Amino acid sequence: MLPVRYTQGPHSMNDRVLRALRGEVVDRTPVWFMRQAGRYLPEYQKVRSRVGFLELCNDSGLACEVTCQPVDRFALDAAIVFSDILVVLEAIGRTVEFEGGQGPRVPEPVRSASDVASLVRPDVAEALPVAPETIRLFRKVRPDTPILGFAGAPFTLLCYLVDGGSSRHWLHTKQMIYSAPDLAGRLLDLLADVVGDYLQLQIDAGAAAVQLFDTWAGVLAPADYLRWALPSVQRALARVKRAPRIYYTRDCAAFLDWLPETGADAIGLDWRVEIGEARRRLGTIPVQGNLDPVALFAPPAEIRRRVRAILDAAGSTGHVFNLGHGVLPGTPIEGVEAMIDEVRRFRI
Amino acid sequence: MLPVRYTQGPHSMNDRVLRALRGEVVDRTPVWFMRQAGRYLPEYQKVRSRVGFLELCNDSGLACEVTCQPVDRFALDAAIVFSDILVVLEAIGRTVEFEGGQGPRVPEPVRSASDVASLVRPDVAEALPVAPETIRLFRKVRPDTPILGFAGAPFTLLCYLVDGGSSRHWLHTKQMIYSAPDLAGRLLDLLADVVGDYLQLQIDAGAAAVQLFDTWAGVLAPADYLRWALPSVQRALARVKRAPRIYYTRDCAAFLDWLPETGADAIGLDWRVEIGEARRRLGTIPVQGNLDPVALFAPPAEIRRRVRAILDAAGSTGHVFNLGHGVLPGTPIEGVEAMIDEVRRFRI
Repeated sequence: MLPVRYTQGPHSMNDRVLRALRGEVVDRTPVWFMRQAGRYLPEYQKVRSRVGFLELCNDSGLACEVTCQPVDRFALDAAIVFSDILVVLEAIGRTVEFEGGQGPRVPEPVRSASDVASLVRPDVAEALPVAPETIRLFRKVRPDTPILGFAGAPFTLLCYLVDGGSSRHWLHTKQMIYSAPDLAGRLLDLLADVVGDYLQLQIDAGAAAVQLFDTWAGVLAPADYLRWALPSVQRALARVKRAPRIYYTRDCAAFLDWLPETGADAIGLDWRVEIGEARRRLGTIPVQGNLDPVALFAPPAEIRRRVRAILDAAGSTGHVFNLGHGVLPGTPIEGVEAMIDEVRRFRI
Repeated sequence: MLPVRYTQGPHSMNDRVLRALRGEVVDRTPVWFMRQAGRYLPEYQKVRSRVGFLELCNDSGLACEVTCQPVDRFALDAAIVFSDILVVLEAIGRTVEFEGGQGPRVPEPVRSASDVASLVRPDVAEALPVAPETIRLFRKVRPDTPILGFAGAPFTLLCYLVDGGSSRHWLHTKQMIYSAPDLAGRLLDLLADVVGDYLQLQIDAGAAAVQLFDTWAGVLAPADYLRWALPSVQRALARVKRAPRIYYTRDCAAFLDWLPETGADAIGLDWRVEIGEARRRLGTIPVQGNLDPVALFAPPAEIRRRVRAILDAAGSTGHVFNLGHGVLPGTPIEGVEAMIDEVRRFRI
């Protein structure tokens, strides 16, 4: 299947996000936000009252339904396919459990050479069909709105694979890079190749752009980021063609100057960096971000003030407005509405 | 009581930490580390098998005993008084519970104007006598070793006071700064004044230097750090005289350029910033840090390599070696020994 071009067809697709990701002039700054299809939305909660999280991730029809929800409610400038970063771990041979509310668990973590030997290098089209199919469905039902694909970055996936679930200190993952660097390197290479192919698969299915989420790279000391996280991102992104690639890391402040070296087309910023300062240090590369998700709990006037400050500092081109991390469960809808409305009103 | 001068008396006190904190030449880089009196030490566990954490914090004799433990075992260049940052919350009128292992809890969090009105402005000498008394005892029993006093920074204390315990997103604290800035400002002023006086009390009792721990300031967006955390640190430190004042914030990378404005005499760095780069950006101010505490779980040769990299990058003056955060429970003693031995061997 050829990549879908946003200018094709009877409907003209909203191209603000793509133009901003290419640094081109836009009529206004585009806006979407991380986890926009999620628990803060009553219509999502309604779907989840019928089906579990994994069932939702594994059913492209249901996934497409919840992918559409925030786009329909807020008329956002992009959708992001509903899925989870950990599906890649299942594709290489590890079960992931989402029960409980303690965060995801990998009951058989990978820590030894024989654990690594038990993993498989999958055919991604065969092993990871749901997100591409969801993207194809979305393209049919919402042809006016671009949809983003995504994947977890290799180091972040390594964290879950080795520690076996969310962790405060990621002791097992760090012990592996200290004590068994060859093993860690082999795992990161495998993850980078699968992640890269998976992003390409989503682009081939019609994703207008893709985002790599490096949620946990920020736990690394800078020398470790340079040795482990950065090369694995480069390796993954080098496999991805024909659509803009966004690289997001939480806690990006420590690594800001190195982020253009990832090879990404745009950098997703978390909220703990001043976006104007980030743009000065990053050079010409477009950026995405970066309102503190907790700010959506503020009074609407305060939300609007903060949105304007970000838009002012970011400038009129090369900026996609977003949160600095995923929207939180319990976020008031009025807060989300105030944020989006202020982005739409703003003219720099 | 006059501040104890490190050059006085029949015993000559180890002055490496003080010299480094003043940017003076030292024979070698001094070393101590955060939470050095703590759960990773078998002799500490032995004391804790008899008494609870709060009992230990409230008994200067026992606190002095555990303060001495790491100094005696490792011949460190400084002690730090055994206590907890949350004792200040008890002094202003809120109970803190440490049961459970879920982290500390404040059963009556402070969120409204009437909650704030229920707090007291204490006489610190009367309300917080244990750490000063522990410092006095330590000065008698270990006159050769300088002892550091400490306190929680105002914003970090605000987080516990308002959210009522450790939190992933500090929703209540951020909601207060968004929705009730006057209330947040009054609370931070109170906390800053009490914290400042408490640090001075510890210096007057014989502390050679003091450290302000801003564990949670790093959850703030930069504009919020500038508006809330920084002025409250300035206010606290302005009350403290006659000994070097170290300001530590976890996640300091985002705020690095502003840290000298705190008025601190030295900056404690977490592990997610390259210490050479930090020194270039911070100017002449001395620094402390910054090995990843998880690195102490690495093989000794790898620990030594990482210690040397930090010492190399930090330079020979104006550096106190430390971890980038508190030592973790379960840390191997051999790892700690390798770190300390490598600092002692190193000559730049």
